[in-house]
Amino acid sequence: MPTIKAAILGFGTVGEGIYRIINEKKKEIEQQTGFTIEIATILVRDIAKKRISTPGVQVTDDIREVFGQPQLDIVFEAIVGEEPAYTYLSEAIAKGYDVITANKTMFATHGPALLQQAEEKGGHIGFEATTAGGVPIIQTVKNLLTGDRVHRIQGILNGTSNFILTKMRKEGLSFKAALQEAQNLGYAEADPTDDISGKDAFRKLMILSQLAFGKQPEWKTIDIQGIDKIKLEDVLEATNLHYRHIADIEIDENGNLSGSVAPVLIGPDHPFYGIDGVDNAIIVETEYLGALTLVGPGAGMYPTGSAMVNDFIRIAGVRKKELITS
Amino acid sequence: MPTIKAAILGFGTVGEGIYRIINEKKKEIEQQTGFTIEIATILVRDIAKKRISTPGVQVTDDIREVFGQPQLDIVFEAIVGEEPAYTYLSEAIAKGYDVITANKTMFATHGPALLQQAEEKGGHIGFEATTAGGVPIIQTVKNLLTGDRVHRIQGILNGTSNFILTKMRKEGLSFKAALQEAQNLGYAEADPTDDISGKDAFRKLMILSQLAFGKQPEWKTIDIQGIDKIKLEDVLEATNLHYRHIADIEIDENGNLSGSVAPVLIGPDHPFYGIDGVDNAIIVETEYLGALTLVGPGAGMYPTGSAMVNDFIRIAGVRKKELITS
Repeated sequence: MPTIKAAILGFGTVGEGIYRIINEKKKEIEQQTGFTIEIATILVRDIAKKRISTPGVQVTDDIREVFGQPQLDIVFEAIVGEEPAYTYLSEAIAKGYDVITANKTMFATHGPALLQQAEEKGGHIGFEATTAGGVPIIQTVKNLLTGDRVHRIQGILNGTSNFILTKMRKEGLSFKAALQEAQNLGYAEADPTDDISGKDAFRKLMILSQLAFGKQPEWKTIDIQGIDKIKLEDVLEATNLHYRHIADIEIDENGNLSGSVAPVLIGPDHPFYGIDGVDNAIIVETEYLGALTLVGPGAGMYPTGSAMVNDFIRIAGVRKKELITS
Repeated sequence: MPTIKAAILGFGTVGEGIYRIINEKKKEIEQQTGFTIEIATILVRDIAKKRISTPGVQVTDDIREVFGQPQLDIVFEAIVGEEPAYTYLSEAIAKGYDVITANKTMFATHGPALLQQAEEKGGHIGFEATTAGGVPIIQTVKNLLTGDRVHRIQGILNGTSNFILTKMRKEGLSFKAALQEAQNLGYAEADPTDDISGKDAFRKLMILSQLAFGKQPEWKTIDIQGIDKIKLEDVLEATNLHYRHIADIEIDENGNLSGSVAPVLIGPDHPFYGIDGVDNAIIVETEYLGALTLVGPGAGMYPTGSAMVNDFIRIAGVRKKELITS
């Protein structure tokens, strides 16, 4: 059986999730793809940090050692932040590797360039895990785009914000106390600015816009509000309404995009009314289908890792057909 | 550009939807698939009945004329009931045609045989439209099954039942009055037995079971209850709870299936709590992802027709690759 040789860049929660799932599902992946997958190398930031045992795998903090691996086929990228992730992936594509990323910050900005680069090279990019974690929104929109047309996408795209709003409403916690609890539970980063300012949701919205409409609006035209200015009394006063942090993008008949990212008060008839906790949710409105809503885990080691492994299996399927046709 | 020649069997709401979408989207389909699609023939029950104009298309009530068309490639089937639909599709597969069906009654019973027949013949079957109309649950489960494992599926799979339960709760209508309104609006058939007895939801559950677990439970082991025995006072007494008609199938560690189809009282924490009206909703529980919920239109000319056209585009994509490799 031919082998696909993989690198994992970044070995935090998501990187470890990929490693675990690939090892647990080795046989199933072989059956489904016809390829054995071998994780050859893992790039870490701090070589001295304690981590799970990865027998037989090169662990390095030097990207040159990763790219020095002979006959690498695919790169899983689970680094945080734009750089050096973009530089690494751009080099990976230039070298002819397929790439699968979970990096929303990088992909919102550099996704268009990477996608174009990959197309020119005949490579593949999987980015299901960049948006809404385990919810297969990227694949679903791709499928809908065959034979239908997307008009509008609304999403609860930041699980941390939704968790905080839920805690405030249900338990009467202050914003600060709810944020603290999100941090204690590992939902929010040590620096939660991107989550609570709306920036994280905005980036995912830009990734969805690129996918659904083939373009992004000018970033500065989108008003971005987070949940950091919502007071407990606002939440509690809205007795029959729920605050949801909603990212919203729409295309008009002339192809113009408009959007917003903001906390919104919604009533029981809105599909997002009952979405509590860290879940993500997305409504896709299309010409023929009407509205389709997806709800699921927006983060986590296994949901996100599983989204990336699914990307891998799809790309391996395409590779196989190319092997046959070449 | 090579042409794909299609037949439509049955020209009610769904058959007309396919015809309309294919004509409206001819150019997009050509761009996406590399094929021109030509609807060559339409099978109707009553040739004298008034219907929309279909210039250049053979309209016949004789299946021999349909199968007599030279070089047919694909058959869209939108007939109601097991027969003659099964016989027609089995013959179509034997002749080497791909088939796309919206016929849940037929597919729940004969799906396993048709799928096996198509596999032996190297043909393709699209059946997205059999279950939950425009909600892409079949494709979503197929995608999840690459690299993940489904444990349980719960669904609101009959929009008519959900519409009736919603009307009873929200407007205090009796079961009979709510059913009458569903019929007036065209949601329920003249004979609504299959909807309100739970049979329709059961059949869709069997299709999902076959897909997710590779098998169906013995039909007689599943207790099927409809909404026809629910009284208005039951609905109104349950002040903070909502009745939902839920079809449920689960696999245990030993591979044994258990399931039920019944009205269930659920609270605000259940993902189905807010699903009102004719929408369908499905929760898929998997090993890695956790729970994914999909909500959307369970029926209708355009949602269902669009699901079938999506099937077509996917199959055309596979055909193209086979053309290249052959």
